[in-house]
Amino acid sequence: MLGLLPLYISTYIKHKQYSTTALKSEGLPGFEFMIKGRGSKSIVEVLAYDKIFRYSSCNVGTTAVAAAYERTERNCSASPPYLPSTAVNTTLRLQELRVQMLLQNISAYIIPGTDSHLSEYIAPRDARMAFMTGFTGSAGTAVVTQTKAALWTDSRYWVQAERQMDCNWDLEIDVSVRSVVEWLISEVPPGGYIGFDPFLFSLKTQGDYSVFLESTNRSLMSVPVNLVDQVWTDRPPIPPGYLTRLPDRVIKRSWEMKVEHIRNQIRENPYEPTALLLSALDETAWLFNLRGNDIPYNPFFYSYTLLTMDEIWLFLHIERVTEELKVYLNAASCSGPLCVQLKSYDSVREHLQTYVDQPGVKVWIGTEYTNYALYEIITPEEKLMTSTYSPVLTTKAVKDETEQRILRDAHVRDAVAVVQLLMWLEKAVPEGKETELTAAAYVNKCRSKQKDSRGPSFETISASGPNAALAHYSPSEETSRRLTVDEMYLVDSGGQYLDGTTDITRTVHWGTPTAMQKEAFTRVLMGNIEISRTIFPSGTRGVNMEMLGRRALWEVGLNYGHGTGHGVGNFFGVHEWPVGFQSNNIPFRIGMFTSIEPGYYKENDFGIRIEDVVVIKPAKTKYGHNYLTFETVSLVPYDRKLIDTSLLSSEQLQWLNNYYETIRKLLGAELDNQGLHEEKKWMLKHTEAFMESGSSASACSSSLTLIALAVTLLHNII
Amino acid sequence: MLGLLPLYISTYIKHKQYSTTALKSEGLPGFEFMIKGRGSKSIVEVLAYDKIFRYSSCNVGTTAVAAAYERTERNCSASPPYLPSTAVNTTLRLQELRVQMLLQNISAYIIPGTDSHLSEYIAPRDARMAFMTGFTGSAGTAVVTQTKAALWTDSRYWVQAERQMDCNWDLEIDVSVRSVVEWLISEVPPGGYIGFDPFLFSLKTQGDYSVFLESTNRSLMSVPVNLVDQVWTDRPPIPPGYLTRLPDRVIKRSWEMKVEHIRNQIRENPYEPTALLLSALDETAWLFNLRGNDIPYNPFFYSYTLLTMDEIWLFLHIERVTEELKVYLNAASCSGPLCVQLKSYDSVREHLQTYVDQPGVKVWIGTEYTNYALYEIITPEEKLMTSTYSPVLTTKAVKDETEQRILRDAHVRDAVAVVQLLMWLEKAVPEGKETELTAAAYVNKCRSKQKDSRGPSFETISASGPNAALAHYSPSEETSRRLTVDEMYLVDSGGQYLDGTTDITRTVHWGTPTAMQKEAFTRVLMGNIEISRTIFPSGTRGVNMEMLGRRALWEVGLNYGHGTGHGVGNFFGVHEWPVGFQSNNIPFRIGMFTSIEPGYYKENDFGIRIEDVVVIKPAKTKYGHNYLTFETVSLVPYDRKLIDTSLLSSEQLQWLNNYYETIRKLLGAELDNQGLHEEKKWMLKHTEAFMESGSSASACSSSLTLIALAVTLLHNII
Repeated sequence: MLGLLPLYISTYIKHKQYSTTALKSEGLPGFEFMIKGRGSKSIVEVLAYDKIFRYSSCNVGTTAVAAAYERTERNCSASPPYLPSTAVNTTLRLQELRVQMLLQNISAYIIPGTDSHLSEYIAPRDARMAFMTGFTGSAGTAVVTQTKAALWTDSRYWVQAERQMDCNWDLEIDVSVRSVVEWLISEVPPGGYIGFDPFLFSLKTQGDYSVFLESTNRSLMSVPVNLVDQVWTDRPPIPPGYLTRLPDRVIKRSWEMKVEHIRNQIRENPYEPTALLLSALDETAWLFNLRGNDIPYNPFFYSYTLLTMDEIWLFLHIERVTEELKVYLNAASCSGPLCVQLKSYDSVREHLQTYVDQPGVKVWIGTEYTNYALYEIITPEEKLMTSTYSPVLTTKAVKDETEQRILRDAHVRDAVAVVQLLMWLEKAVPEGKETELTAAAYVNKCRSKQKDSRGPSFETISASGPNAALAHYSPSEETSRRLTVDEMYLVDSGGQYLDGTTDITRTVHWGTPTAMQKEAFTRVLMGNIEISRTIFPSGTRGVNMEMLGRRALWEVGLNYGHGTGHGVGNFFGVHEWPVGFQSNNIPFRIGMFTSIEPGYYKENDFGIRIEDVVVIKPAKTKYGHNYLTFETVSLVPYDRKLIDTSLLSSEQLQWLNNYYETIRKLLGAELDNQGLHEEKKWMLKHTEAFMESGSSASACSSSLTLIALAVTLLHNII
Repeated sequence: MLGLLPLYISTYIKHKQYSTTALKSEGLPGFEFMIKGRGSKSIVEVLAYDKIFRYSSCNVGTTAVAAAYERTERNCSASPPYLPSTAVNTTLRLQELRVQMLLQNISAYIIPGTDSHLSEYIAPRDARMAFMTGFTGSAGTAVVTQTKAALWTDSRYWVQAERQMDCNWDLEIDVSVRSVVEWLISEVPPGGYIGFDPFLFSLKTQGDYSVFLESTNRSLMSVPVNLVDQVWTDRPPIPPGYLTRLPDRVIKRSWEMKVEHIRNQIRENPYEPTALLLSALDETAWLFNLRGNDIPYNPFFYSYTLLTMDEIWLFLHIERVTEELKVYLNAASCSGPLCVQLKSYDSVREHLQTYVDQPGVKVWIGTEYTNYALYEIITPEEKLMTSTYSPVLTTKAVKDETEQRILRDAHVRDAVAVVQLLMWLEKAVPEGKETELTAAAYVNKCRSKQKDSRGPSFETISASGPNAALAHYSPSEETSRRLTVDEMYLVDSGGQYLDGTTDITRTVHWGTPTAMQKEAFTRVLMGNIEISRTIFPSGTRGVNMEMLGRRALWEVGLNYGHGTGHGVGNFFGVHEWPVGFQSNNIPFRIGMFTSIEPGYYKENDFGIRIEDVVVIKPAKTKYGHNYLTFETVSLVPYDRKLIDTSLLSSEQLQWLNNYYETIRKLLGAELDNQGLHEEKKWMLKHTEAFMESGSSASACSSSLTLIALAVTLLHNII
């Protein structure tokens, strides 16, 4: 994409002892050159986003030919600052926001990257952080004062942030609340107020800020009107479209059964709550077996639920509920505890207030997903009961038999699509016409042909060479690379199906990988296998075993900067918390599904990730009971070319061969069903059993052959 | 100890299909019998504390001969209840406590097992929980109401609690604050008050109780006078004895240097604290390089410190400070910021109040070790600054060069004592005269002869057969078993030395272990090795890798119910938090020391634990920087008889051989120095290199020998 620009550059080295010095580029801002090496043996190194070019024999004082690429990250320390074409000019909107802040008398304003339901993925109308900063990553917090503006985001997004933000913004890399607070202390004078929108803070977030700020003489101030919305004139409207109910064939438990089940948990709780407030979008969607399309890739709809022992209040945009759905929900002329009363989405605070004002009530909320605006209504404190997650989230985490069966099914069909992509790329890439974008389009199309497809479950990550080193990169017209046999390729994609959500990553190389690429890939695979094959007591937490995904990498000083897996389920968001390997995830139980996705990323060079979805199932052990293990339900082979079997233990090799047997059986049958003969042949070729490479077993067997030979010879002679 | 009591018992089986039914014992309370098996193939099984006897051919309606042992655990469901001789009668003291509770108008009283410094090990005068309950374990919480009394303790202590408590007490096994609160909700009527001694609650504990209780209409009430002390008439006095300073040869940093270093951390803190309050006993001991003897096995003295930028207030029993020490501390006629002002121990609240009353001050406390009685003084909230641990604890966690060197040295001398014990037992046990108690005395004596010995670092755990299944058992006259070649033996012991604290566990068998014992031991060892040899990025937390200690056990359905390791240091408490593998421990850094101690316990049968102390050091890796690993500084070989090398990976075997090489080098030199030739010979025999058992390597090498032979033969013949 970024055109090759050969140009003459003059070089200078100030001092022979310098091992590195700057090359002056001739009037081309955003292009960068470096010299590595010493004196006359120096090497010109052209640093660019997607490649490092090295030119040797660049002597002191000489002129060298080099290639230059546009620098794709901003350089705010240059004069004037350099901004790549991807940066967004935020000067005007910051000015306007600062006026709003003055009107509210606040010294700082916190802008989280979430919505009122504390969703991980949000609708465009909720992308306030992106609007203000230019940065469109899925995680971050922005803070603005009258003189400064800063964004906190994690390592997945640092490069992206440097490409999208202009020089109004500082990038901060420690994403803890403590780090934000320390910045606030340095920027906000004592006595100052720090404003936030209470709908965009969980009560936990509000609490964390309060704890850290409480001794600093700066105060948090809940500002009921969102200040970004005041300056965001073309903010997108509420999405239109009716809600839909799930068909009976994908459901074991009707919404009435679920309501009764949750009511039992309310009844049995020793703290004696009288109602449960559901705020996360997947809580209400799960409870009523309903889906919507308010958030791209996420089948949710804006909603809250207040569930008591005899009433059900469902807050949503009522105009989006069809007459048929009203019947389904017993929403019209119904009496008894199983009638759903539809209430306007915007009336949730008012209705919650009415409920709380009654004597003897106590509202149960999950602290992770309830916003501060609702929490602050529930007073005095004896009317509040908290747990980290609502009983809906913990119940939903364990899939029932039907959910397990259909989610496995969805993965079989999904594997067909991924195999189709990989087979096609193997043929098409050497012809030189395919790009990250065309590959993404191809896999999306393959998925759309599978039964019950409802589109991708997230924006496909189709990344070649250095682009894959950005863990959450998705290709655009500007960045899309041509696929070649010289670079590794990573594709992380998933589908929404009526029966399940999928998420799988494969990394391949169509030419000859370097030794380092092969070693890194094999060690990432070892991480995936080590977690997958481990046996653990029921109730073990993912966070306590996720290092198994990193250990083979750590052994040679490699690592990755993201989590190791997240829950996944039946037609929900692709990250279905609170299941997974993060520190705030709940213990593993039979029937949970999670991804396992270790990786390795070499900046400016390549990226590797291997992701599979697994289900937790009982493990048979010699002495114990109640032990669990994982079974992989993603069914796509790994690139054989990238596996160095000499690094694998015999247990790992055996696991791999067993897994390939399962692919042959389950995916083989599906490919037959769909009449996909070429795909079947491709799959069989890629799932042949591995032999122990250079293992002592084979060495011994040849020794034994030699002995037999010798003995035979002896025998013949004697 | 418990005499064998042969007796005739009549048996009956109600129904042939019953696999288990009760045998009636003839008027012997505390003795228990069971039948396993069906009908005429039934087996009489005599359950007793230290052995299960099985007798076959016990037919329906027949009379069988069986052996009976005294039941060692209470049976409160029997009528009348059965109490073993180890149970303590608490009826009277409970009555008296309940009178005190009525006077204070509280419905429940919480009795933690700690002291005002939230110490893990406490002085006899602080053993209030033990006094009230009879239970002497090191961890637990007791709660008393007018009608009930309950003790919460973890799985290590369940059996011990059942032996020591009378039937006034219920044993509760879920030790979370939530569990205690749920019990309180069921026992305390709404509106009721729950009393606690604010000196015995950390502010974190108080906060946890408050959070859980806040919505329940029951209130926590701080009761300034300890109610147990009111009824404990023969409570031990304050221990006498002068404090001592560490000799210069074991110190790199003088107390003045440490004070300056900590003041720098106060100065650099962005929350701008003006003072640091130290409450944990090891904080003050570390800061001033002082030691005392107030708590058995722990060289501490009752103390607090308030450190400001220009003053140092040391709260302690001033009569225990010699004139020499006063000079050392600049405690007399001194001016400037390095003068220690001695204040009476009991005046800490009053002086803290005086300090806090000044304008512009802010006191920094660590929430884990500051008691609520001091915390509640620091108001308003802008005068308080908290972190989980004080900067003294986090600084102390990383040992300086001198501390590392002398702590390694202490482990070399300590290994001499343990080798002397193991060598002696190997000879003495078959003669049949040694017991758990004599073995404990022997190792204590061996340690006392080593240079700079200051006694054991905890009560020696010397446990044979089923006693070792109790993770924290220590032998007494009543329980001490004779050591025999038929049972496994576990010894967990450690020493205090002027230069370091040690802690090591070895498990041995002098006869023929069962296959299961050998497998379990080997898997425990595999756990120890897997942690020890792992390479991880600097800053990894122990809790995220401790499953490596369990994984080989999990594989066959085994596990252990205790933590995997704790920090250890230079002449402090044997559990030197916050280093270790627990969830609240801080990330690992170079220069920290921790124990690694996986185990396996088969109830009523045997116990295995393998514990070593390791230091964290840099690891060289192929690609990365800033990676760490462990180096074992305990230097005692494991029992070869119990190692099944066929279970070990070649990496594990190689680690083991490298470790044994280190023992030979370091311990060998020390044994030579001390002229202990027999011990040296014993050590060399027990540290011979292991060959890969049944491995393809050895199989191959013998194959190759055969080939060579065959070829030679051929050659000769032809």
